[in-house]
Amino acid sequence: MSVAGAVREDRLWQRHADMAKLGGTPKGGVNRQALSAEDAAARNLLGVWAKARGFATFTDTIGNLFVRREGTDARALPVLSGSHMDSQPTGGRFDGMYGVLAAFEALEALEDAGLKTRRPVMAVAWTNEEGSRFQPGAMGSAVFAGHNKLAEMLQVTDWKGVVLKDALAETLATAPAPLRDGPPGFPLDFYVEAHIEQGPRLENEKKTIGVVTAIQGSRRYIVETTGEEAHAGTTPRAARKDAFAAALRIAQAMYEATTDKDDTLRFTIGRVDVLPGSPNTVPGQTVFTIDMRHPDDSVLEEHEAKLAAIVATHAVPCSAGIKRVTAVPPTNFDPRIIDLVRAKASALKLPNMDMPSGAGHDAMHIAKLCPTGMIFVPCERGISHNEAENATPQDLAAGARVLAEVLAELANR
Amino acid sequence: MSVAGAVREDRLWQRHADMAKLGGTPKGGVNRQALSAEDAAARNLLGVWAKARGFATFTDTIGNLFVRREGTDARALPVLSGSHMDSQPTGGRFDGMYGVLAAFEALEALEDAGLKTRRPVMAVAWTNEEGSRFQPGAMGSAVFAGHNKLAEMLQVTDWKGVVLKDALAETLATAPAPLRDGPPGFPLDFYVEAHIEQGPRLENEKKTIGVVTAIQGSRRYIVETTGEEAHAGTTPRAARKDAFAAALRIAQAMYEATTDKDDTLRFTIGRVDVLPGSPNTVPGQTVFTIDMRHPDDSVLEEHEAKLAAIVATHAVPCSAGIKRVTAVPPTNFDPRIIDLVRAKASALKLPNMDMPSGAGHDAMHIAKLCPTGMIFVPCERGISHNEAENATPQDLAAGARVLAEVLAELANR
Repeated sequence: MSVAGAVREDRLWQRHADMAKLGGTPKGGVNRQALSAEDAAARNLLGVWAKARGFATFTDTIGNLFVRREGTDARALPVLSGSHMDSQPTGGRFDGMYGVLAAFEALEALEDAGLKTRRPVMAVAWTNEEGSRFQPGAMGSAVFAGHNKLAEMLQVTDWKGVVLKDALAETLATAPAPLRDGPPGFPLDFYVEAHIEQGPRLENEKKTIGVVTAIQGSRRYIVETTGEEAHAGTTPRAARKDAFAAALRIAQAMYEATTDKDDTLRFTIGRVDVLPGSPNTVPGQTVFTIDMRHPDDSVLEEHEAKLAAIVATHAVPCSAGIKRVTAVPPTNFDPRIIDLVRAKASALKLPNMDMPSGAGHDAMHIAKLCPTGMIFVPCERGISHNEAENATPQDLAAGARVLAEVLAELANR
Repeated sequence: MSVAGAVREDRLWQRHADMAKLGGTPKGGVNRQALSAEDAAARNLLGVWAKARGFATFTDTIGNLFVRREGTDARALPVLSGSHMDSQPTGGRFDGMYGVLAAFEALEALEDAGLKTRRPVMAVAWTNEEGSRFQPGAMGSAVFAGHNKLAEMLQVTDWKGVVLKDALAETLATAPAPLRDGPPGFPLDFYVEAHIEQGPRLENEKKTIGVVTAIQGSRRYIVETTGEEAHAGTTPRAARKDAFAAALRIAQAMYEATTDKDDTLRFTIGRVDVLPGSPNTVPGQTVFTIDMRHPDDSVLEEHEAKLAAIVATHAVPCSAGIKRVTAVPPTNFDPRIIDLVRAKASALKLPNMDMPSGAGHDAMHIAKLCPTGMIFVPCERGISHNEAENATPQDLAAGARVLAEVLAELANR
């Protein structure tokens, strides 16, 4: 029996259903925020399943939970796969959880297929990827990779004032896996993360597998236009300095300047504040946010210059400014893993396409430690961070099959 | 001595300065809201001045304060002039107050010139024109004209829960003029109101007198676009239903469709709400207000149809709707008064122009009772409803001269 053949669609689907009960919402989503009782329950359930299969488990000091299937070479570095089990407050059943359960399914498939690997193969559930309760998100993988400091993260508080250290201690008190003391992080051979796409491209193009080439870079800006408040009844247009009209000209020009042939550049104006916000007063100020993303940092750089030029020329008779708030460079995945994912998907006759990831993932931190890649599967209409998030058992199993084949090959390299 | 020659610029300016102390703000504006202690103080000061000149005074049951200079014909209907003494919370020294003091100056000029008139000439300070404390505004003139019912207005409360009836009783307890029992309102021969323009046209065109032909009609709308919330990082533009982008296309087309050659149509988008308002979420809904005004109701009608057509055609792939919230028809002033104001201004060699009023005024209610007109004088940069509101002593006196000549001629008709 091949490893792919040992992946069981029914088992994988049932595990999703079991996990969805922990923090399940009336609308069919989940509310399982990081280091909550629901998160602890999910950890325990994974621990029970791991124990039943005889896999070793441990937790590190930021709460990342590892499941280990031993290899034949005691000195070989492990191949790791996983994602996260925490959710948005009104999250879905698949975001993150799929990557954890697909990795666990791969471990079980290796076991069921009776395939020994030279390297250990491990599954991981990273702590607090969502960042909706404790910020920043992708915290567990960031601490593991040395990007964020453990001591600092332990002091972070949620909006109720709960200190992460205390929430973590409570979670670890019921942890299904022994605590591995000391700072998180250990050497890895390869890392591969499976995830639902959280976008509509695979569904639209009728592909089952997304061969993820990169996590796109993202930049955030704030644009502010300043005009002059004036009486809506008495002030002729020629005498107005309408800050919203200026913002509108700027925004329109920006939408045009960020239109690209292959629809890869992401440009979003998500928050708009128009002041003073009175129906019979010409707006004196408008502030809006820009979220811009692309897999190629030079494209972001080029478009940042375009945005600045638009702000400089389209505000008259108002004044305007643009300020960059954040700039996260793209993560380019390792070509060996990209090629391997593509090859395994094709060998399994699964329709696949190369694509960048629009959203950030734990893989972006781990990519700094070892060769890393990702596998996407479709989600219904691309809807995510939403209780309506959905995916099919067939697609989830297909992704797990590719993952299991990839992990098996990497672990025997 | 002519009546115009008897108008004293220094006296008129000093009266403005005296009134500006009542509710004066550190920034040089006034906070003299309707039926406040400051409003009562202004009424008392006007009463003191009236008494000193031997003019009769009385107050009606909605608090409108009248000053009367008798005519020679006991049976002749009076000619009335005035405006209001209440202000916005952060108002200026001239909005409303100028119309009251110019009318009072006209009475004094008639007296100083020793000119007897057949009809009585009266000055009025209407109660609560601003409507910032008690709504609706222009309340005193509306009740006087029978547009609003006294009994209903007495029950109106301010945001602290004070009932208008109680605030009015407190104001009338210290009123400088005897209460005239019974419902407000009495027959008038003519009404003429002087006011600062509250817009920049006179200043821009270097005119001293605005011959007000009409108060423009106004309509308010709410436009709503509905799209679909989506992840800013993962959703390609082709798959988005961006409610803000749709609102922007609609707004842009509306700005273009409401551009008129003579810059008379007023089109304002003053309030804009973009939901959910998260920087990394494509907006699922946008709601904005439209305030549209023009002296000709058919122009408003025609443009309303254009707005509806734009909403119907520019929202795709989102959906959109437009809803009319209010429609106030224009007030056209009496041609006899328009001609008389223009003639008197020209005779005094004052640069003048015909113009509609952009803002609403008490005159719009009184125009339903008798032939009515208005006289505008410039205010600095058109700024009003603002503590920075300003006007020159020369312009204020010029307007008072035209008013005095107009009232003298009407009173002797």
